Amino acid sequence: FKWLGFKPCGTTSFLNPFPNRALDITLLALSTGGYEEHSPGRGMNGAGGPTAMMDPLEDPVPGVGTYEDFNTIDWVREKSKDRDRHREITSKSKESMGALLHRISDAFSGWLLMLLVGLMSGALAGGIDISAHWLTDMKEGVCLNGFWFNHEHCCWTSNEPTFKERDKCPDWKSWAELIVGTGEGGFAYVVNYMMFMFWALLFSFLAVTLVKSFAPYACGSGIPEIKTILSGFIIRGYLGKWTLIVKTITLVLAVSSGLSLGKEGPLVHVACCCANILCHLFTKYRKNEAKRREVLSAAAAVGVSVAFGAPIGGVLFSLEEVSYYFPLKTLWRSFFAALVAAFTLRSINPFGNSRLVLFYVEFHAPWHLLELGPFILLGIFGGLWGALFIRANIAWCRRRKTTLLGHYPIVEVLVVAGVTALVSFPNSYTRMSGAELIKELFNDCSLLDSSQLCRYNAGNGLADRPADSGLYTALWQLSLALLFKMGITVVTFGMKVPSGLFIPSMAVGAIAGRLLGVGMEQLAYYNHDWAIFRGWCTPGADCITPGLYAMVGAAACLGGVTRMTVSLVVIMFELTGGLEYIVPLMAATMTSKWVADAFGREGIYEAHIRLNGYPFLEPKEEFEHKSLAVDVMRPRRADPALAVLTQEGMTVEEAEALVASTRYSGFPVVVSQESQRLVGFVLRRDLLISIDNARQRQEGVVSSSQVLFTEHPPAQAADAPPPVRLRSLLDLSPFTVADHTPMDITVDIFRKLGLRQCLVTHNGRLLGIITKKDILKHMAQMANRDPDSILFN
Amino acid sequence: FKWLGFKPCGTTSFLNPFPNRALDITLLALSTGGYEEHSPGRGMNGAGGPTAMMDPLEDPVPGVGTYEDFNTIDWVREKSKDRDRHREITSKSKESMGALLHRISDAFSGWLLMLLVGLMSGALAGGIDISAHWLTDMKEGVCLNGFWFNHEHCCWTSNEPTFKERDKCPDWKSWAELIVGTGEGGFAYVVNYMMFMFWALLFSFLAVTLVKSFAPYACGSGIPEIKTILSGFIIRGYLGKWTLIVKTITLVLAVSSGLSLGKEGPLVHVACCCANILCHLFTKYRKNEAKRREVLSAAAAVGVSVAFGAPIGGVLFSLEEVSYYFPLKTLWRSFFAALVAAFTLRSINPFGNSRLVLFYVEFHAPWHLLELGPFILLGIFGGLWGALFIRANIAWCRRRKTTLLGHYPIVEVLVVAGVTALVSFPNSYTRMSGAELIKELFNDCSLLDSSQLCRYNAGNGLADRPADSGLYTALWQLSLALLFKMGITVVTFGMKVPSGLFIPSMAVGAIAGRLLGVGMEQLAYYNHDWAIFRGWCTPGADCITPGLYAMVGAAACLGGVTRMTVSLVVIMFELTGGLEYIVPLMAATMTSKWVADAFGREGIYEAHIRLNGYPFLEPKEEFEHKSLAVDVMRPRRADPALAVLTQEGMTVEEAEALVASTRYSGFPVVVSQESQRLVGFVLRRDLLISIDNARQRQEGVVSSSQVLFTEHPPAQAADAPPPVRLRSLLDLSPFTVADHTPMDITVDIFRKLGLRQCLVTHNGRLLGIITKKDILKHMAQMANRDPDSILFN
Repeated sequence: FKWLGFKPCGTTSFLNPFPNRALDITLLALSTGGYEEHSPGRGMNGAGGPTAMMDPLEDPVPGVGTYEDFNTIDWVREKSKDRDRHREITSKSKESMGALLHRISDAFSGWLLMLLVGLMSGALAGGIDISAHWLTDMKEGVCLNGFWFNHEHCCWTSNEPTFKERDKCPDWKSWAELIVGTGEGGFAYVVNYMMFMFWALLFSFLAVTLVKSFAPYACGSGIPEIKTILSGFIIRGYLGKWTLIVKTITLVLAVSSGLSLGKEGPLVHVACCCANILCHLFTKYRKNEAKRREVLSAAAAVGVSVAFGAPIGGVLFSLEEVSYYFPLKTLWRSFFAALVAAFTLRSINPFGNSRLVLFYVEFHAPWHLLELGPFILLGIFGGLWGALFIRANIAWCRRRKTTLLGHYPIVEVLVVAGVTALVSFPNSYTRMSGAELIKELFNDCSLLDSSQLCRYNAGNGLADRPADSGLYTALWQLSLALLFKMGITVVTFGMKVPSGLFIPSMAVGAIAGRLLGVGMEQLAYYNHDWAIFRGWCTPGADCITPGLYAMVGAAACLGGVTRMTVSLVVIMFELTGGLEYIVPLMAATMTSKWVADAFGREGIYEAHIRLNGYPFLEPKEEFEHKSLAVDVMRPRRADPALAVLTQEGMTVEEAEALVASTRYSGFPVVVSQESQRLVGFVLRRDLLISIDNARQRQEGVVSSSQVLFTEHPPAQAADAPPPVRLRSLLDLSPFTVADHTPMDITVDIFRKLGLRQCLVTHNGRLLGIITKKDILKHMAQMANRDPDSILFN
Repeated sequence: FKWLGFKPCGTTSFLNPFPNRALDITLLALSTGGYEEHSPGRGMNGAGGPTAMMDPLEDPVPGVGTYEDFNTIDWVREKSKDRDRHREITSKSKESMGALLHRISDAFSGWLLMLLVGLMSGALAGGIDISAHWLTDMKEGVCLNGFWFNHEHCCWTSNEPTFKERDKCPDWKSWAELIVGTGEGGFAYVVNYMMFMFWALLFSFLAVTLVKSFAPYACGSGIPEIKTILSGFIIRGYLGKWTLIVKTITLVLAVSSGLSLGKEGPLVHVACCCANILCHLFTKYRKNEAKRREVLSAAAAVGVSVAFGAPIGGVLFSLEEVSYYFPLKTLWRSFFAALVAAFTLRSINPFGNSRLVLFYVEFHAPWHLLELGPFILLGIFGGLWGALFIRANIAWCRRRKTTLLGHYPIVEVLVVAGVTALVSFPNSYTRMSGAELIKELFNDCSLLDSSQLCRYNAGNGLADRPADSGLYTALWQLSLALLFKMGITVVTFGMKVPSGLFIPSMAVGAIAGRLLGVGMEQLAYYNHDWAIFRGWCTPGADCITPGLYAMVGAAACLGGVTRMTVSLVVIMFELTGGLEYIVPLMAATMTSKWVADAFGREGIYEAHIRLNGYPFLEPKEEFEHKSLAVDVMRPRRADPALAVLTQEGMTVEEAEALVASTRYSGFPVVVSQESQRLVGFVLRRDLLISIDNARQRQEGVVSSSQVLFTEHPPAQAADAPPPVRLRSLLDLSPFTVADHTPMDITVDIFRKLGLRQCLVTHNGRLLGIITKKDILKHMAQMANRDPDSILFN
């Protein structure tokens, strides 16, 4: 039990804002008297005397059946509990009208919850978008009509006909114009530069300070932790209201500060926080960890849906990348919630256009089959960059965890933000936000387009044209931006501010793609007679679209970093509205995944999960080794025998001694030490709470009282103290596997059923136990990694 | 073992075209000498003498580890086998260059297979589309340039400017024009009518005769059977080459005959046949039933992808509706195959337009929030119709199974085809094919549109207009068509011809939707001042689009019949290209599913699975009852004890007697009869084959030889006959559950792990066995259905 070792975003220590909350849960399990303060509602039978406590089946002791922090839930038990609840409601519903209504409201509570999650996440995402726009523009200037307007909004009513002219509307003043009275000249440039840096540093300082002081869990993208939580781990407070509030605020600040990070990953975390908080409104979800995880899976879909305006892609993202247990019912509900969220966001309309898509593209030329060559090249680039990024980022994060660097998160963030602002101001492609950059790069050049990327020596309509010197300048700037983004993202992701990876990865890919696209275009223009261009790229024909290359490059780089596949293609397609470009996207994504997988099969999220030592059993990876259950189980051959309880004949004292002498979270109960025939399994926490409860409330229970797990009490001497009957604590259907079961099958069982532990038998005799942690340690050993890197139970 | 009870499409008997194939597999298991003819490759060690046969581990007996027809596979064993194979290839790959190449080709064989499946299915679908168009037009007339041209193709080169004029091109002659020389007048009408009926009857006769004589498995939609096969059932020949050939041909005939059926469901079957046949090219998939099912899941996606031009929808359909085990790897591969297939089909271009979508719509007006009211009404209609259709169709199919009706499939098909042709010729909306009807109903009326559905008293542009008498006629015709389609589809689905449900269901919904849409439009036109229309439906405004109502209605009816959800919405969206209409589609689909579920939770495919008694464990339905494993297991309390083998001490004779006295497909092996401690599990088929093999090939084996399942042989008397050692047959890791395990957990384990049987223990002693069939029988009992309706193992 090592909660003190938990270090989100790799800082070597941090102030826990709720030390008591974590600690009293710890005490609850480890001490023998700490649970009472948690049972305010027990007055009813607190003084009920021994008879009231004789049958624990009737009145479960509070605390029994709940989980400690940093522990793994038992999916089978949780789902069974929910089915019991459902069965009870169904059977009662035949009795009265009220119960029938209860049943109906219970059936629809899931849908209501989804609606609320969608509305709340959509509204929050809209608020984040609007605030981030405002603060980002604040770095450059201020609106005279009211400081709360962003640049675009400020010039909304301006009468200038084109957007470019309107850009220069009189109400919007750059800082230089305000301070030194002119926007032109070297001095004004320096003033703007200084103000830009000032705001960037201020925003990042506020962000990191808020995170550090109020909600350390708000840092990072949150997706690795959410994956772990969805697989059945408990991290209390990770999806709490403090995390939500602080993450929402600091996300806006971090994005506005101009750091190389996106808001897409953190939006998934925000949506999951909303879902978790809303779960408290419904008993069905509040009390059941498995049901709550179904809602969280849907919330992950909602997060991506609002981040990209991609409801279908969001659902597939949740299915493919984040969720662990994703029944069909959840699929349907996620889709509903994702749609609600997308429509809520749309009605708030932060993008200022009525389209649902973020980067709407409409290319005027179709792609040619031969272009698959450069697309695959982009895929290779994406794969290489993904693999390289993961290695570099993990190495940097490990350094942060292990060296002094981790002790100064505020300094780190300030230095990185300072460098980012310093370098990015002079280059217009780094100065603009990641999303704007991507939009510009995806754009197709029509003749009207005034962007520097479209400075061609225009001549014959929309056909391929020779580049102008303006375009060459832009290409140089883009190349520098590419190198800078590649470097700075490695150190940015994982700092103690909310930070997403989607936009920076896509930006890197989009720059590379645009460069290749323009290169191909010029190549085709000057070499129409080459064999590869003949037939489709004749002079005057419009054949190569650099914007499409940018789109494909973005998908390739994102694929290389995250190893998403179908969901990535669908997100890109929903993001851009181009059903025609699925094949290029797919070719690049597939290549990128294969290339990146050749250097290491883990995506960035799995790599961070492993870095942090979470107990996550990767559902995608096959167990490749030939070991048997008997090789993995504890006790090993040299170890002392397994600690077991017998169903009768043990005293309270003996049981307590056994528990105290070990650190296991549960104990098998056998018929007798000789036969080792298994009866059931009892959890440490439940056992301690119940024994303690009996000692305090049940009359006559002393250390020499017997602990009984049998159904019927055996005959006892008349003067013997009353026994403590604990059969109700017993899990009478513990999972068992035979000792010869291959580990690949055992791992499969653990994954599919969501087990926490499994007992091992040989010819019907109990032999040992395998826990999830044992499996993870075994897998780490097999892969020549440090098995002690898995921290939690 | 009741293969003779298998009756596809409900005929009470049929000629099995391959009686020997099914029978010799039966004999193989039940006789003791039939396996040899199946082992042509055994010459190598056939004469190896007793030493060569001493260790069966080295040389597995042929036939061991395979399955009988109409049996359930063991997913765990199959997947474990594949992992073993993969591990072997990986470890060998370090030895030589050739083995490394083998490893690489093995890794890519899955992708190659997907490519081939996509290409073959796409090409077949294109061929089916083209042929069906041609034969459908053949009912009306013939092309003079060449009888192999369809109407559109025939008039391709015609110089008439508009399509309507081109329709009357001189090369295309109706039958009346050919036979009596004129296309006008009553007599010509009668001649056309007769010819229409003649061709319809001829096509349907050919279809049913081909199915009956050559491939009885080719009937129906195939989706219920494919669902069952994917869940792990074996139906030999169901996906074989004969089925493929006959289904492809008869599908064209059935569609062309004008029967109320679609080709979408059967295309899924065709794609699965392609996949199954192509699997034979790759050892990895040929030899492993679990791996092959992964390919079949992808093929189901391919089928829908080519049926609707909807690759994403196809993948979701496979995931939601058809597949049982759908790992993420399959998701990605299905998507690839679905895209390849869609592009192959597109390059063949049967729809004659370059769009990927079948029913491309572009509505000129957005929908209003208040319209959700009528959309939900359509959802209610769809749900009611779905529930009614399922009940009526199942009742009719049951009648076909149990009465004389089933004995005359040819007569039945001819009568239905005759009635269909007779009734549908006079009404233009029933005369056209289902797909054309849907296209027409989805269409938005622009002013240029010449369809009868757009006969408005045109006035003010595209705005809502008063209906003309032409439109009223069309509405009457549509109402009649609705009633007719609703009735005839009930008796058509399940006849002995290939028949899909998608198009007929969508047609019913589209008609209902269009009627409601026109109604709403007229209501709005004449009552602009009503409160509900105020603000958005002012005079001169274009507010209500009847085509959208048709689209929503089609989704609602299809949803009510199949209970698809996400996949349906995505298919509709891909089918029509309208991302804007997801919310109306979703509202209608959701309502339709809820309404239909209130009358019975089964979709049409599940209902047919139950009707046919397939052993299918529905993954969507929760097990609701409170029983324990001990209540379901065999032997029941009154029954004789469980038939078990002991690991030593039994003779060959005793073992054979035990097997002969029971019909179980496998036997637990225990340490001794007294202790009942479980050692492993052996399959009946493996045991019989191996004992027989030993008797014939191992010297000295007689009836009194011992059967040994132990690792080390015990000391024996010197003159004792040599023992038969069968440890290699033993599954040393049989699944066990405790007797107190609730059945909901047990059912969950069966579903998630794909078990065939599970042993039940009490405190470490073997107590009984639960098979998949026991569970299904128990569930049938709990739902007050006949438990003997489950036919197969």
